[in-house]
Order: sequence, then structure tokens, then C-alpha cells
Amino acid sequence: MELNKRQETILQIVKEQGPITGEAIADQLNLTRATLRPDLAILTMAGYLDARPRVGYFYTGKTGSQLLSDKINKIQVNDHQSIPVVVHESVSVYDAICTMFLEDVGTLFVVDNFSIIVGVLSRKDLLRASIGKQELTSIPVNIIMTRMPNVTYCFKEDLIIDVAKKLIEKQIDALPVVKQTDKGYEVVGRITKTNITKVLVALALDEII
Amino acid sequence: MELNKRQETILQIVKEQGPITGEAIADQLNLTRATLRPDLAILTMAGYLDARPRVGYFYTGKTGSQLLSDKINKIQVNDHQSIPVVVHESVSVYDAICTMFLEDVGTLFVVDNFSIIVGVLSRKDLLRASIGKQELTSIPVNIIMTRMPNVTYCFKEDLIIDVAKKLIEKQIDALPVVKQTDKGYEVVGRITKTNITKVLVALALDEII
Repeated sequence: MELNKRQETILQIVKEQGPITGEAIADQLNLTRATLRPDLAILTMAGYLDARPRVGYFYTGKTGSQLLSDKINKIQVNDHQSIPVVVHESVSVYDAICTMFLEDVGTLFVVDNFSIIVGVLSRKDLLRASIGKQELTSIPVNIIMTRMPNVTYCFKEDLIIDVAKKLIEKQIDALPVVKQTDKGYEVVGRITKTNITKVLVALALDEII
Repeated sequence: MELNKRQETILQIVKEQGPITGEAIADQLNLTRATLRPDLAILTMAGYLDARPRVGYFYTGKTGSQLLSDKINKIQVNDHQSIPVVVHESVSVYDAICTMFLEDVGTLFVVDNFSIIVGVLSRKDLLRASIGKQELTSIPVNIIMTRMPNVTYCFKEDLIIDVAKKLIEKQIDALPVVKQTDKGYEVVGRITKTNITKVLVALALDEII
């Protein structure tokens, strides 16, 4: 939505002098209140301004594209996560690689006897192990995995955008979505760069409210 | 931006009967044109409606969030691509894996003597090869790579959103950005799910105009 010059001027006045009444704005512009009414309505509806009875108009501090980004900043992990694929900490690296191909995922989560997350295996971890000299069927995954507390995780109520930032910052492909239990963190989901990419596509297709 | 009930009704009328004049809309709602003026101004400014002199108002076909998604649908590959990492088609799988670790990328592009793309190597391709029985130092990458014309690619003028759709649809992590030459496609860039994730973060931080 593009603002016209008068609306930009109003925005500037409210920014500097707000809270300010509609009459006071009209006075400064040498216009009647009636003339200004549609402009004030547009600015209020679009979220640039807010109005309180007996106080006047004030600036919300939001620019046009900030209002767009607000939408992105509300999307939760919950609605976009995938099913996690887990392996027990005692399985061999070879079996883990097979699981990765069978399940067609890029990241496996490693759990203990209580289904509590103890580590993470990426394709990179498995590739590194596979070019080593060891016999892949005899090394357990807990030797090569990234282990707690060095695993980055998230909760289902977390914001997608915070997960996206973590994926970039830590240079990883996926995070486990966890739930706190008595024994530790149980894995309940998986969120990957693919999920993030799907969020962008959904936004572009106007599928996210 | 949220519409009020009267604005929703106007939108509905224009959708069904447009192009329609302001008077005709006012008649149907038993209101004066003056009363409707701010609403029509808001709907027009926000991009829901468009108006032409002597024709009337018509519906642009855009919903509120479609207008938001317009912004995403303008972002080009050009502004968000990374530097490509290439290997010659004659190098061994072992050397390709080493390059992947050294350059810290998830996808390598394979080129011929003329720097023309002939294939792509993903971590998955290399992991599959590495658990095979062959000697990795003696197999050239062109045996295991995904080869042209089965490689999905894009151009720098393409839209990020189309790349995102391709990455999801083909279940791949990266696309080469190519340039047409006499001999074939030269690799000029790389676009990954990480780049797409960064686009979402930039949108959320309001860094993309």
C-alpha cells in the first residue's frame, strides 16, 4: 500500500507531535477535519496510526513493510514441523546411514532408552565417519554424533523466524522440536530448512493468514 | 490491515457486479455517496479496488495478504545467491568429499573442460557412494553425479519463490545459477535452502524493500 503525499505529511506530524487531535492536524494543514477524515481513516486502518478517544492520534512506529514482517513474526513451529526420525544411541553408523536413506531425511535424532534426546546426526557427520578407516558396522552412533548439551533445539511454541535464525547461525539443516519431561527432552518434531522454505512459498501463495 | 463490515460488503458488491459506480454501490447500501467515500478511498488505496473514470470501481482480485505476498513474489535470485563451488568431472569421489568439507558446502557442481556444468553432487550422492564397496579414490565423480539434462538449474533473473518451489518439489538442497553460453550452461552462482531461509529472516527483519 502506497501513501500519498498528504498522508505522508500527516504521518510526519503525528510522529513529531502525537498524541494529537484530528482538529490540530487539520489546522496545521489548513484543511477541514472532513477533508482529512478519509486520510486519517486509511492511516489508522493500515496500522500506521492508532487513535484513542479524548487523546488523539499517535504513531504506532510501524512502517509499511514492518506491518508485512509482523505477519512472518507470528508463525509458530507448531504449524510447520515434520515428523522426527530417531535412532537409538547404540545403533551402528552403518545402520544410521541406512535409516537416513530409508526415511529420506537429512538429520537423525539420537535417543536413549527413555526416548530422551542425547544427540544429533547430520549427513555431514555420517559422511565424515564414512571416509574414515573404521568399520561402519561396528562404531555406535554415539561416538560420532553431536551430543547434548551442544545440540540446538526448539519448542513447538517457538517462532519459525527464531528457528530460521538458529539454523543460519549454527550452520545446520534441522532442529529437533522437544518437550520437557522428568527425564530430559523428548523429541516431538523436526524442523528443517525445507520447512522454512515451505513457509516462504506458503506466504507467497497467500496460504498463511 | 483489517477491513470493517461495511468495507467487506462493498468488496463483495464490486466483486460480483463490478465495474460499478460509487452511486450504484451507495444505492444498494441505502447510504449516500459521501458516507461511502472514505470506505471506497481506503479500499482503493489498499489495492483491493481500482477505479476508472466513467467506468467505476472494479475488483483487483487481491486479498489483503495477497498484497503482502506481492512483495515476496518480486525477490530475484540475483540478490540472494552464493558463490558456487565446482569440481572437474574427472576428480575422484574422495577428492570431491574433501572439497565439500573444505569449502563447507552441501552441493558441488561438476564441470567439463569448458567450465560448462555437466552434473551435480549432493551430500547424499557422496554418502551413498562412500558406503559402497568401491575405492573412493579411484571412482571419478561423473560416475555417481546427477547428470545433465536431469539437473535442475535457474537463472539470476529468476524469482526466489520459483527456486523455492523447485527445491521443495525436487527434494534437493541447492540449484546452480547458470548463464547460457555457446558451449552450454556456465555456473555463475549457487542458491540453497540456506539462502531461502535468509530471505525469510530478511523479510521478518524488514530488510527487503
